[in-house]
Amino acid sequence: MSLFYPKKDISVQTIRRLPQYLRIFYNLHGYGRELVSSTTIAQEMHLLPIVVKKDLQAVGAPSKLRAGFKVAGTIAVIEKFLGWNNLNKAFLVGVGHLGAALLGFAGFKNHGLEIVAAFDTAADKVGKSVHGVPVYHTAQLSSIIAQENLKIAILAVPAGAAQGITDTLLSAGIAAIWNFAPIHLQVPAHVIVQQEDISAGLAELCAKLKSK
Amino acid sequence: MSLFYPKKDISVQTIRRLPQYLRIFYNLHGYGRELVSSTTIAQEMHLLPIVVKKDLQAVGAPSKLRAGFKVAGTIAVIEKFLGWNNLNKAFLVGVGHLGAALLGFAGFKNHGLEIVAAFDTAADKVGKSVHGVPVYHTAQLSSIIAQENLKIAILAVPAGAAQGITDTLLSAGIAAIWNFAPIHLQVPAHVIVQQEDISAGLAELCAKLKSK
Repeated sequence: MSLFYPKKDISVQTIRRLPQYLRIFYNLHGYGRELVSSTTIAQEMHLLPIVVKKDLQAVGAPSKLRAGFKVAGTIAVIEKFLGWNNLNKAFLVGVGHLGAALLGFAGFKNHGLEIVAAFDTAADKVGKSVHGVPVYHTAQLSSIIAQENLKIAILAVPAGAAQGITDTLLSAGIAAIWNFAPIHLQVPAHVIVQQEDISAGLAELCAKLKSK
Repeated sequence: MSLFYPKKDISVQTIRRLPQYLRIFYNLHGYGRELVSSTTIAQEMHLLPIVVKKDLQAVGAPSKLRAGFKVAGTIAVIEKFLGWNNLNKAFLVGVGHLGAALLGFAGFKNHGLEIVAAFDTAADKVGKSVHGVPVYHTAQLSSIIAQENLKIAILAVPAGAAQGITDTLLSAGIAAIWNFAPIHLQVPAHVIVQQEDISAGLAELCAKLKSK
């Protein structure tokens, strides 16, 4: 995975923790706090203080000697690192239970992602809107992608349908796919795939249970 | 996180990849393959061969010199490492879109997890069954946990309700919580919490997009 990250000192684990740091720093900012120690954040996140320190230093969070990290400045560098200071338009394919849950996730808009369209084949979904997002028929994928100049796809279809839809997305010039289907997609090297795997979290949980 | 893992050589990233290895090895086993090289698996998973080799060696996968890893033996050690050779009973709280998606995830039974009960407060859900799992009222949590001797909870409630339900679960003697609510739960040290964070995957995706 490290192939994707030019800054070699920033690990995938650090990147995955950045949204949690953001949530905590947003809260602190809301309370008017200007500085916070890595120890305080570490307690909140159940991490070792040194991990917090290294994570925040890796993204260049500004700090004040012996007083901790600057709250507003740290928010700014994390948002910039993730590109969450701009809104990226995305669309979702597959409005089943998971797809609907993703459409309802209010956090995305704070995380640089605006889902502007959804696609499904079910007659009782097409033409309606789910959590404010219009649902189109999957047959309209190519035309709406072109019309709206969309580059980021969220895939929440069954495993059996995922590669076929991916091929359509590739023809339409998609740059990135956030894939929730439990299958490894075949894509050319220049297309980014972020694979979500619910069983990865379950494996972590089980490993913790076993080592108890 | 490493605090939870007694075998220091097994990283969280390795553990999170184990379900993907299992899927590939199950497939190979289905085709009658007895041996497979780390190079073949690396291609399938878009990883470097050395990563695959280290991952599988870390869990003690059996291999044959210059011929690769033994398929059946590797399945056995991964299943044993994760405890997926036994079924753990679990229950789910919160049958919204996400909860329903989790109840419908067929993979759990192959992953050592059997969801035997679900809980919600909505009158139109209580008393019905979703994907074959009976839905009880949340007021029945303590009694059914005790009656069925359940130890693993899956939490798919809104952030605002999560800590209150967690307190009930703690009183009922729960050992582990798989938390999908975007909030850090306050629990005593002996209780395992596996935090799922949808925005962690989004952060990874955005970091890849930014470094393109």
